[in-house]
Amino acid sequence: MFTPSRIKHCRVCGTEVAWRVPPGDNRDRAVCPACGEIHYENPINVVGTVPVWDESVLLCRRNIEPRYGLWTLPAGFLELGESTAEGALRETDEEAGAHIELQGLFTVLDVVRARQVHLFYRASMLDTHLAPGPETIEARLFREHEVPWDELAFRTVRMTLEHFFADRRAGAFGVHVGHVA
Amino acid sequence: MFTPSRIKHCRVCGTEVAWRVPPGDNRDRAVCPACGEIHYENPINVVGTVPVWDESVLLCRRNIEPRYGLWTLPAGFLELGESTAEGALRETDEEAGAHIELQGLFTVLDVVRARQVHLFYRASMLDTHLAPGPETIEARLFREHEVPWDELAFRTVRMTLEHFFADRRAGAFGVHVGHVA
Repeated sequence: MFTPSRIKHCRVCGTEVAWRVPPGDNRDRAVCPACGEIHYENPINVVGTVPVWDESVLLCRRNIEPRYGLWTLPAGFLELGESTAEGALRETDEEAGAHIELQGLFTVLDVVRARQVHLFYRASMLDTHLAPGPETIEARLFREHEVPWDELAFRTVRMTLEHFFADRRAGAFGVHVGHVA
Repeated sequence: MFTPSRIKHCRVCGTEVAWRVPPGDNRDRAVCPACGEIHYENPINVVGTVPVWDESVLLCRRNIEPRYGLWTLPAGFLELGESTAEGALRETDEEAGAHIELQGLFTVLDVVRARQVHLFYRASMLDTHLAPGPETIEARLFREHEVPWDELAFRTVRMTLEHFFADRRAGAFGVHVGHVA
């Protein structure tokens, strides 16, 4: 899946960009022929949590595209001015209104074709109060056998949940690195 | 340290952007008043390695700004089309010309003010052949007591090296998550 760049004009001066390899670089960038600005494009981070209460994990049913109506762990794009942990906490608040305490980093999953890296932290829910935000149709707790495996929104959510239940059975949580092909 | 945005013009149509909160969002974005394009800005990933040969680690002396002349682990910006592991391998090749085999993910370090997340993998050097690229003055192996601690380029490099030597003494390598204040 090749995603064409959306960069047609210079962000600094508005001139139409040219694609070329800047001096000292080794790949094509959108370069401004007027002011010289180089526009780099890089993968961005999606940060989220695996919120746990007793035997259950918290999932949110998406009220937005893509994957409207499917279930996800609370997650979203890391913003400027926050750490990956802070972003994961914020997304869990925004999407589920859940009160959590972060545990360790749990999965780091490359999603190369989507130009993303997904990072999930384990989290303990402090209570069962939930207040889903506008991006969520409903948020609820699922025991392992209740997880809607065929209605999960993203493969990284599936992978993270699979690692979670496997590690819980094994009695020890690691940090799992992987990728979506 | 507040870094003002470089976005003044729309990347799609070149019109001057306006800063406002898009519908359904909760923070200011550069929005194009003509075509509606929303310009998100997010932290980007720096990926690198801790290349190990016998008792030594490989450091590179920077031939570029920032931190010209100081020592770093091989690392650089994650590019589109590659995983974090692939990016770490590529940077190690470009900066040091070292032949390595990646081991596990080792550190994930938020550098919020620089708008970056740094991810370092441990790596085994397959031989001592080195061929530093144009970004590197010299590359060489350092035993722990030889590491130029006062001439390291980045705090994440120092933190990663400290974790590395501590874990090696302890006889087990973990994954370390942290941040630069």
